[in-house]
Order: sequence, then C-alpha cells, then structure tokens
Amino acid sequence: MMRRDGRAANALRPVKITRNYLKHAEGSVLVEFGDTKVICNATVETRVPSFLKGKGSGWVTAEYCMLPRATHTRNQRESSKGKLSGRTHEIQRLIGRSLRAVVDLEMLGERSILIDCDVIQADGGTRTASITGAYVALADALQTLVDNGELAANPLREAVAAVSVGIVEGTPFLDLDYPEDSGAEVDMNFVMTSSMRFVEVQGTAEAEPFTLEQMDTMRSHAIEGLARLFEIQREALKA
Amino acid sequence: MMRRDGRAANALRPVKITRNYLKHAEGSVLVEFGDTKVICNATVETRVPSFLKGKGSGWVTAEYCMLPRATHTRNQRESSKGKLSGRTHEIQRLIGRSLRAVVDLEMLGERSILIDCDVIQADGGTRTASITGAYVALADALQTLVDNGELAANPLREAVAAVSVGIVEGTPFLDLDYPEDSGAEVDMNFVMTSSMRFVEVQGTAEAEPFTLEQMDTMRSHAIEGLARLFEIQREALKA
Amino acid sequence: MMRRDGRAANALRPVKITRNYLKHAEGSVLVEFGDTKVICNATVETRVPSFLKGKGSGWVTAEYCMLPRATHTRNQRESSKGKLSGRTHEIQRLIGRSLRAVVDLEMLGERSILIDCDVIQADGGTRTASITGAYVALADALQTLVDNGELAANPLREAVAAVSVGIVEGTPFLDLDYPEDSGAEVDMNFVMTSSMRFVEVQGTAEAEPFTLEQMDTMRSHAIEGLARLFEIQREALKA
Amino acid sequence: MMRRDGRAANALRPVKITRNYLKHAEGSVLVEFGDTKVICNATVETRVPSFLKGKGSGWVTAEYCMLPRATHTRNQRESSKGKLSGRTHEIQRLIGRSLRAVVDLEMLGERSILIDCDVIQADGGTRTASITGAYVALADALQTLVDNGELAANPLREAVAAVSVGIVEGTPFLDLDYPEDSGAEVDMNFVMTSSMRFVEVQGTAEAEPFTLEQMDTMRSHAIEGLARLFEIQREALKA
Amino acid sequence: MMRRDGRAANALRPVKITRNYLKHAEGSVLVEFGDTKVICNATVETRVPSFLKGKGSGWVTAEYCMLPRATHTRNQRESSKGKLSGRTHEIQRLIGRSLRAVVDLEMLGERSILIDCDVIQADGGTRTASITGAYVALADALQTLVDNGELAANPLREAVAAVSVGIVEGTPFLDLDYPEDSGAEVDMNFVMTSSMRFVEVQGTAEAEPFTLEQMDTMRSHAIEGLARLFEIQREALKA
Amino acid sequence: MMRRDGRAANALRPVKITRNYLKHAEGSVLVEFGDTKVICNATVETRVPSFLKGKGSGWVTAEYCMLPRATHTRNQRESSKGKLSGRTHEIQRLIGRSLRAVVDLEMLGERSILIDCDVIQADGGTRTASITGAYVALADALQTLVDNGELAANPLREAVAAVSVGIVEGTPFLDLDYPEDSGAEVDMNFVMTSSMRFVEVQGTAEAEPFTLEQMDTMRSHAIEGLARLFEIQREALKA
Repeated sequence: MMRRDGRAANALRPVKITRNYLKHAEGSVLVEFGDTKVICNATVETRVPSFLKGKGSGWVTAEYCMLPRATHTRNQRESSKGKLSGRTHEIQRLIGRSLRAVVDLEMLGERSILIDCDVIQADGGTRTASITGAYVALADALQTLVDNGELAANPLREAVAAVSVGIVEGTPFLDLDYPEDSGAEVDMNFVMTSSMRFVEVQGTAEAEPFTLEQMDTMRSHAIEGLARLFEIQREALKA
Repeated sequence: MMRRDGRAANALRPVKITRNYLKHAEGSVLVEFGDTKVICNATVETRVPSFLKGKGSGWVTAEYCMLPRATHTRNQRESSKGKLSGRTHEIQRLIGRSLRAVVDLEMLGERSILIDCDVIQADGGTRTASITGAYVALADALQTLVDNGELAANPLREAVAAVSVGIVEGTPFLDLDYPEDSGAEVDMNFVMTSSMRFVEVQGTAEAEPFTLEQMDTMRSHAIEGLARLFEIQREALKA
Repeated sequence: MMRRDGRAANALRPVKITRNYLKHAEGSVLVEFGDTKVICNATVETRVPSFLKGKGSGWVTAEYCMLPRATHTRNQRESSKGKLSGRTHEIQRLIGRSLRAVVDLEMLGERSILIDCDVIQADGGTRTASITGAYVALADALQTLVDNGELAANPLREAVAAVSVGIVEGTPFLDLDYPEDSGAEVDMNFVMTSSMRFVEVQGTAEAEPFTLEQMDTMRSHAIEGLARLFEIQREALKA
Repeated sequence: MMRRDGRAANALRPVKITRNYLKHAEGSVLVEFGDTKVICNATVETRVPSFLKGKGSGWVTAEYCMLPRATHTRNQRESSKGKLSGRTHEIQRLIGRSLRAVVDLEMLGERSILIDCDVIQADGGTRTASITGAYVALADALQTLVDNGELAANPLREAVAAVSVGIVEGTPFLDLDYPEDSGAEVDMNFVMTSSMRFVEVQGTAEAEPFTLEQMDTMRSHAIEGLARLFEIQREALKA
Repeated sequence: MMRRDGRAANALRPVKITRNYLKHAEGSVLVEFGDTKVICNATVETRVPSFLKGKGSGWVTAEYCMLPRATHTRNQRESSKGKLSGRTHEIQRLIGRSLRAVVDLEMLGERSILIDCDVIQADGGTRTASITGAYVALADALQTLVDNGELAANPLREAVAAVSVGIVEGTPFLDLDYPEDSGAEVDMNFVMTSSMRFVEVQGTAEAEPFTLEQMDTMRSHAIEGLARLFEIQREALKA
Repeated sequence: MMRRDGRAANALRPVKITRNYLKHAEGSVLVEFGDTKVICNATVETRVPSFLKGKGSGWVTAEYCMLPRATHTRNQRESSKGKLSGRTHEIQRLIGRSLRAVVDLEMLGERSILIDCDVIQADGGTRTASITGAYVALADALQTLVDNGELAANPLREAVAAVSVGIVEGTPFLDLDYPEDSGAEVDMNFVMTSSMRFVEVQGTAEAEPFTLEQMDTMRSHAIEGLARLFEIQREALKA
C-alpha cells in the first residue's frame, strides 16, 4: 500500500527546527513535522510548585494549546469554553513527563521551566512534534542559565523526542499526517531518550484491537524514526 | 526481591466481582482488586451524543470518581473545585474507549450506556479494576436489554479487562498495590480483549526510562494476569 | 391508611449502622435507613477555616454527595456540572450545623473534623440518615484522638440524630421512603440531641399549607423515632 | 430583658411597603422592616421551565441578592466570585416555594413570574422582608395580567408573609434586627398564609438546642406578628 | 429636530445627587440623570491589590452592576451566569480609571477605596451617571478619613464627571436617554476633570462612521454639559 | 525629544502584511508592526448569532488572544484561568465593531466571519495591528466567497485600519512601541475607514489628564499614520 505523499512506511515527514523563533522567551523554537507547526517557548521561573518548596529540587512542566484555526474547521477556544478539554490535559501532562525524564531536577535547583507548545498549524502528530521541539527550547533555556552563571552545569542528561506510528488499512506507518491519522485503526506514540530507552508508550486501538506482532512492527518503525529525530535535534543545537 | 504481601511477581491480588450490588442501575457491580473497591453502575439511556444523532449507532462512555476519603489522606472533591482534574479526564476517557472496543455499536442502536465507576476505597490499580468491573456491569445492562426484548441480540463481541504492571527496584511486578505503585520506577497499564489482543497500552517511566527487554517482561506478566481476569469475569457472569 | 411496606405511621424503617466500613478514614460508617445507604467518612485535619485561625477553637463540617446512579434515574455529577446544586449546599450546611451542636469546639482545639456523606443508594431520607450516621463516624474519629493522646477528653457533649416526618394523603407518617416522600403534601425534618432538645426543625408544605395541629402530630412522631435512633447509635458504639 | 430599641418581645419593627417603586417591572415594591430595605421586582415571562413545558401550568420563582455594601462590612459580589453562595441558594428557593404556595399555577397558565429581591440595606430579617414584599409585587404583576385581559381571574388564593423569631439571652423575641440576630441562640423563620396555615417552618439552634416549650413560645410570637403583616399587606394593596 | 422630551440639543436631563443614601457605607450616593438611578457606595479598605503591597501607595477601583429589572426587559444576573459580561468589565474599568485620575494615590497611603455602582433603574447614560455619582461618594469617604484623623489632608486633586453625547438622525445631542441612545448612529462618552482636561474619550460609530467636524460638535456639547455637572457636584457636596 | 529607535514623532514602525500565512483558514494574515506580530485567521461560518437568525443579515466578530510568552514576562493562559480578562473582552469587542463598520451585513447574507487574532509576539499596539491585519484576512475570506460563487458581490464598503498615539514626556508620538507605551501619560487609539471617517476613538489619561490642544495633535498624527496604513493594505491586497 502506497502512502498519499509517497513516503516509505518507516519514513518521517520533512522535519525542521528553527531556534530563536520569537524574541522574549529564554528558549524559542518553531518545530515543523511536515505541515504541522508548533511554537515552543521555554520560560524560566524562579519558583517551584508548592509540593517542591524548600526541597532544593526544580520542575519542568508544559502547556499545550492550538490556535482555533490550526485545524481544517475551527475549534472553539478553551479560554472561552472556560475549561481545558481532556485531550489538552492529557497532552500537556505527557509533554511535561517526557521532558522531566531527561532533566536532573536537583541540579536545576529551585527553578521551574515551563514550555508553552502552541500549535499554529495542525496536520497530525502535534503532540510528538511538541515534545521534539520542546526539548530544543528547553536545552536553549538551560544553556542560558549556564551561560549567565546561574547554573554551574547543564542539568540535561540526554535528549528526548517522540514520534507516532499507526496501522492504516492493516499496514503500520511511521509519523502519520492528519488524513492517515484520522483513518488509522491503531494509533501509538513513543517517547524515547537518546540512549534509546522508553519514557512513554501509548497505544490505542481506535477501531480494531491489535496483536502482539503488530505492536512489535510499530515499535521497530518508531525506533528508526526516533534515531533520525535525535540527529535532527543535534544538528539544530549545533547551528 | 520479595513483595510486601508475599505474592509472586506475576500474581494478581485476590479479585472479587459482586453483581447486583445496588438496586437502581441496569448493571451494578462491586469490583475488588485486593483493598481497591470500585462500584460500577451501568445506566441505559435512550439518546446518543450529538455527533451520533440520526446515524443509527450507539455509544458507551464512562465517568470516574473517587470518594474524597477513598485514599489515605483526603482529596478535595472535584465538584467543589468546580472542575475535573486531568487525571480524571484521562481515566474516564480510557474506560470509555476500552469498553467501546468490545461492543458492536451499530447493533446497540441509538442508545447510550454510561458506566459510573466510583472508587470507594483505593489501594492501587483503580483504573484497571474499574475497566474490569465496568465490563461486567455493561454485560448485565446489555443482557437486560436483550431480556426486555429491546435488543434482538447482545452486541458484546468479547470481554475486556485491564491490569497494571510496574518495575519496582528493578523487578517487574504484576498488579501493583498502592505502596508498590507509589515507589515504582515504571508504570504500565494493559487493556486487552479476551481474544488476547490489545486495546490500550500505556507505559510511563516515572523515574528511569526502561529498556525494550523490560517492556517485554512487563507485557508477559500482563498477558498472564489478564488471562486470569477473563476467567474471573466469566465465573461472575455465570453465577 | 396503610403504608406501602406495612409499617405503623410512627415506625422507622429497619436502621443499621456498620462501623469501620472503609479502612482509611478516622471514622467510617455505613448507615442504612431501609434501602437508603450512606457512607459517612470522618477525616481529622490539623487546621481550621481562616475565620477561626489562632482562636484556639475547632470546627466540624460536612460534605454531601450522591453517586449519580444512587437514584432511580441517573443524575448528572456535580463535578461535571462544575458547581454544587442549591439542594447539596443546603444539606451539607445542615449536617455540619447539626454535628457542631453536640461538640465542644474549644475542647477540640485547632482541629477540623470533616464528615463526607456519600449516598450510594437513595430511597428517601438521605439527609436524616447522613446526620444519624455521621454522628457515629464523628464519635469514632474523636475517640481515636483521645486514644492517641491528642485530646485529653472527648469533646462530644451528647448524641445527635435526625428523622423525617411527612403528611401523605392527610396522614402524618414517620421516616418516609422515596415513594411516600415524592407524594407527600408536607415534609418535615427534625434534628434533635439525645437530651431531647431541638437543633433544627424544617417543615415545608409541598402542596398544601399545614395547620398547627398537624405540626404537633408530626413533632410527636419525630420525637418517638428519634428516641429509637439514639438507642441504635448507642448499641452501634458499644459493639 | 429590654430590647435595644425598646420594642416589646412580640412586636414587629416599623414595616413599610411602597408600591410602584421602580418603573420598568410589572410589579415593583420597596419593603422596609426597620432599617432592612429590599426592592422586589416582579417580571412576567411567557415561558416556563422545561419540566413544565406543554403542561398548561405556570411557575413562580425568585432570585435574591444583596448589594455588596448592604451590610456593615462589604461582601464580595457573587457575580465576581462566579457562583452563588449556599445561603443565597437557600433563600431564593425559600422565597419561590413560599410564593408558589398561594398561587393557583394552573390558572396562571404557561407563564412564569420571576421575583427579584435585591437587598439594598440589611439589618436582619432580609429573607422574611423579601417574602412579605415579594407577595405584594406578585399581586401587582398578576393584577396587571387580569387588567390586560391576559388572565380571566387572579390566580392568587390567599396572601403569604414571613417573620423571624429568635431566642436572645434566653428570651424569645419577634422580628430580630441584625444586632439581636447575630447574638441569638436560636433563630426561627415562619412563613404562613393569611388563612394562618404554615408554608415553611425553619428553626436552627445557633448556640444551644431548644426545648419544646421554647419552640411553642416562638410559634405564638410568630403568629401574632404574621397577623399584623397580613394587615399591612392588605392596606398597601388597597392604596 | 426636536428631542422627545423637549430638551435643547446641548441640555442635560434633570440631575440629582442625594448624599448619605444608605447607612453602612463610608460614602453613599443616589445619583439620578433623568430616570437613570444609580446607588454609589464607597467602601474604605485597609489593604491594596498585591501589585501595590509595600509601595506606600493606595488604590481606587469600582464595580458596576445592574439590577436584573433595571431595564425594560429583564436581564439575567451575572452571578447566575457565573461570569461578568464584557460590557460590565469595560464599564467598571472605566469608572476606576476615571476616579484614580483625580486622587493622589500616594497621599491616600496603603488603603483602597472601592466604589460599588449599582444601577437600580436604567434609562441611558448609566456609566456616565455612575462616574459622576461615584466621585461624590468617593469625596465623602475620603473626607471621613480626614475627619477621623486617618489622613492628614484630603488626597482629592479635583473633581471628575462624565457625560454622553451622540448623533441621532444626523444631529449631535447631549446626555442621551435610552430611546435616543438605542437609535444613535454615534455614541461618545467624555470623562473630564474640573480643570476641564480629558481623562477618557470614547467614541463609537454604531451605524455610520463620523467626520472630524461631527466629533468637534460632540466635544463642544460635552464640555458644556460637564461644566454644569461640576456645579451640581459642588452644590451637593456643600449641602 | 528623540525616540528610542530614531523615528519621527509622526512615523509608523515598519509595517508588513503577509497573506496566506497558514493553510487552513479562508483568510490568513501575519501582520507585523515593528516587533509586534499577530496572526489573523478568518473563518467563514454558515450560521449567525441567535439574535440575527432568520433576518437575512450576516455578522462579523473577532477573538483576541496572546501566546503566554508573547510578552517579556510570561502571562497565565486565559484558558487555564477559566475566564477571559476584561482587557481581552474589550479588545475583541473593539476589533469586531471596527470590522463590521465596513461590511454590508445584508449583502453578506446569513453567514458569520470570525477573525481570530493571535498575538505571537507583543511590542505595543497589538490591538491596532490586529484590526489592520484582520481587515486583510477579512477581505481575503470575502473574496473567496465571491470567487466560489457564494456571494454575487463583495460586501466590503471600504477599508478599516487602526493606529495608536500617545503622549510621552509631554510629546505626542505615533504608533508607540512597548517601552514608549508603558511610560506614556496618555494613550489613544484611532480606528478609521479609508474615507477618513472615524469608527472608534479611545483616549485614556494614564497619568495626567490631557488638554484639548493635545487631543488635536494626537488626532493629526493618527490621521497621517492611517493614510499610510491604507496604502500598505492596498499594496498587500494587490500582490
């Protein structure tokens, strides 16, 4: 089965990471996975959530939002609905956990890094693009703290990135775009660190339960894609 | 490494399913996974969410709540906070998706089944107990519709159940209780159908990313535990 | 006129009080007035509301909730509505006032006791069952403080209980069940202490105003029923 | 024991009812119980709550609010808190029930009368003044419907009024002002119809439970006060 | 073109300011612009918003509300909607800014004055009447602080008042009443100080953009009206 | 007095309008006023607000939001606060009114155009940039309707744009950037149509009331700036 855009089953879309995208944030990245575009802004705050106060440890958290017209038809703003959807809660908790997995929070000291992931255009994979871009914004914000002398060393232990895999008409595909994703029977997201260990695995059968063999093929595709994403992050951070 | 309660690494806690627990609901189950106790009440409604109106298809959804003092220290009620937490949203979406995976929604017709999962005592695994008990409450509610002549046949395709696995001090354990869960390095939840296919896989590294080998051991434990849960459900439904 | 369940006009339904019902709370009671079942969990907190801070006095308060399917047809959760109904506010304020009437708050010191009354099955009289059961949960929580040496003496002055009376087709009946209550012309609730003094009297003409003579008959029935409830509480606490 | 303002124990404060107080409402009354001043505006709406639609019956309901500085120290607005307090819910439900007790809702037809009770100055007894004044605003609004030919006859069956009684330093007093009320051991509110039957009885021991004898004295005072309030209403409506 | 009530194009409606209108507030004014009636209550608080804490400076702010039946048809209460409308936000911010323009906030010290403007009857110009009356309530509250010795001198620098102007069927009119306002093509509000300088200018073309010449005529009318309002304020404060 | 960036007192910052900025919206513009960057997305909806249903007329409205880190320090999201600030309400009402002033709503028919203005970087003048850019997005969305044959002719009557003027250290300056704006004594916004008529005039004395002469100078600067903005819009729409 051929993919709509001619990609191989285990190929990523073109991925682009632009650093210093906006001027105010300590780290500011525009990440693009094909037509999916997310602005990731990292803010350093000199306070921690109340459960960490006085413990000498820091925190990393994230917020996620879509512009109302990031999507094909317009979505109502969560600010005018007066509450966040379950989907938003789920995604921002996922981004935060993924980033904390690669930061030595004690080295960070009593500081918080808050990453705002704002999707300005959506075409599938907004959460995986967000994690992948947020890592780079986080790295920039932490390096600023080192450069300013506020931190003696960078508390990043390794990189983190994420990718989706899905089963479309029975075939496992890497990095689904929106048309593929909306027709997928199974949708999985893998978050890994650059030592190729898992931080999060989330798989959902949208239409039909999946077998152990299918899970293994999806996992292989994801590992290949993630290896490529770690390269792209490294190149972006070198520039 | 020995488990606090002497269980084998791949053993479930004592599991008990009490049907017809309360008198008003179309299906009413008390499910116990050790000291975790959840009331699952199934309600049949003769309407569907607006996106399904007029399409001839039904819906299954769930709500999840804990009594404030289900836990060791008291939690504020979400009704007095005025909103559901991210965790609650995530769990109730998971329960709903899991149940829908085994129901033929077209056979159900324009009806909704809403399963309320109310945790009256929590000791780890409340979401997996909820799914496992909710299936039985759902089966009872659907059977009532068949018995009443409202449905020609039961739209259940197979059973669904869920179990947690985690890595505690480096060792993968099945069906964590609260003390194990709160110290686990990795926490995974598996939702499977009785044909031993996956509906949901969720794994999170709380402290330390996990390797491919660790993921495979956890998956094996889960499959063993789920096979046992399907037996317990079958026995309960025979009674 | 005969009652549906054959009871005398001035008879209570079978009342049952189960202590130590759940394991985490300092006092945990399941109270049953016929088919009405309420879990009353008492939590001790070492803080007081802001208006009492630094005054050396304690507080007793309550929260009240029904499982959505405690009733014949399902009620929407107040947590998903995002606010408490007027009825819930009224009931939880009533339970709190009733309990405070029998506690020496200065002896309690700067502590709060919060009683959660969660109705798992409703068949009329949920507020009166809640007060009657909450008293026992409160007594257990306070005794724990004495046993732990946190309090020198028990600050309970006497017992408190509550019962409903109503006029159904012109006849005053004690302790209405749901079918009686929904057809009652007048509904009264009496909260008394074991010295047979009144803490709360609430009477409402649902359909037809009532005379002074009717009020006096209802009051007599209530006093008889309450005398019996105080015995049942005493027996439960002796066990 | 002497009352602060020299009144007899069973005397009302000066009561004044001003009709046609504001120009837009179908009935508009300023009611004063001493220094307590409440604007009662009646609005006629040609719709009914959803549970009454198509049943041919009408509805009467009320809303209650205080200006923030109606009281000695300022209260935060409920509109900026974003929710109504329990006290407000309780009072507006009470006012609505009291008024419905004297209206033939079937004669009213599919119309709602909504009475807004806005306390502009508070000095005790705001809920009893509200009910007493709201009745007059309601009578004016209903008479307008008769005068306009929208109703063949006035659906009012009799009058309704309310008064408070309390025990202050052991003595039962009628119609407490704020200083008396804030020091009262017991606080009761009686709502009666002009046929001297009870619509609502609410008694609360704020400090000390009360005896049956005390309840009877309070009831006598209330009956005397209410007889006088019915006269004042009648005079106001004649004017 | 003749005005409905026979006024000249540049004439105010009868304006009346009643001081000491209600008894609890530190300043309490009923202001009437024709049939528009607003109660303005000033409250002195010994705290400041958090952004001013410890800076030695005070604050003046306002809240604005309409009784539901201040208007020809009833408006839903913002407290039962659970949020303030955009219009309310806009008006209360405007009143607050206008008053702060004439107060020396440093002389006020760490105190807040909060002016509640509650419209009991609306007939156009509620925001301009509110500002004009709020100034007098503010002056009374500040004078109380001077009289009590809490302030050495009065921090008022000059007076502030407001008036509306609009273009109705092509003609600029001063101080629109509701029928004029609802048909106006352009609506402007001017807030000035008694030294005849501008604090706020707000002009909106409701139907048709307006020319520079029209703006100049409206401004002239406003200046005339404001000069008269300053006289009325001075007379009220002398009384 | 010299401006920080060397501009003349009556000069705009560099203004840039990029059409077709994002791919899903019917009109999508990135507008830049110096470092202020706003994405304006126009959505066509085939429904109208309820007050317009069945009247044959259309509607144009706007929503306004800032990314949390559009500003120098991070702002909390309005979606997590659960409500829109007064400032946001004010701005989105202003944008909507400004756009409606140049659209023939009857020619538009029963359709709504909703313009989302999302500020991704803020440096003063976000509301004036939003209006200026929103006009271009609106023009593109309306032209699409004409091109699709859904509208016979374009219902735009003329162009609309907006600019700010302020008094900084006594001197009137056009198009303030953030440092100028935050120190300005007076802040005015002018919204005009391309026939050089006024839609909105808003002037606020932040620190010191302003004279009639100062208002006239600010107005002259605004008129010059707006003439230039109309040219820039025309060039952008030609491209």
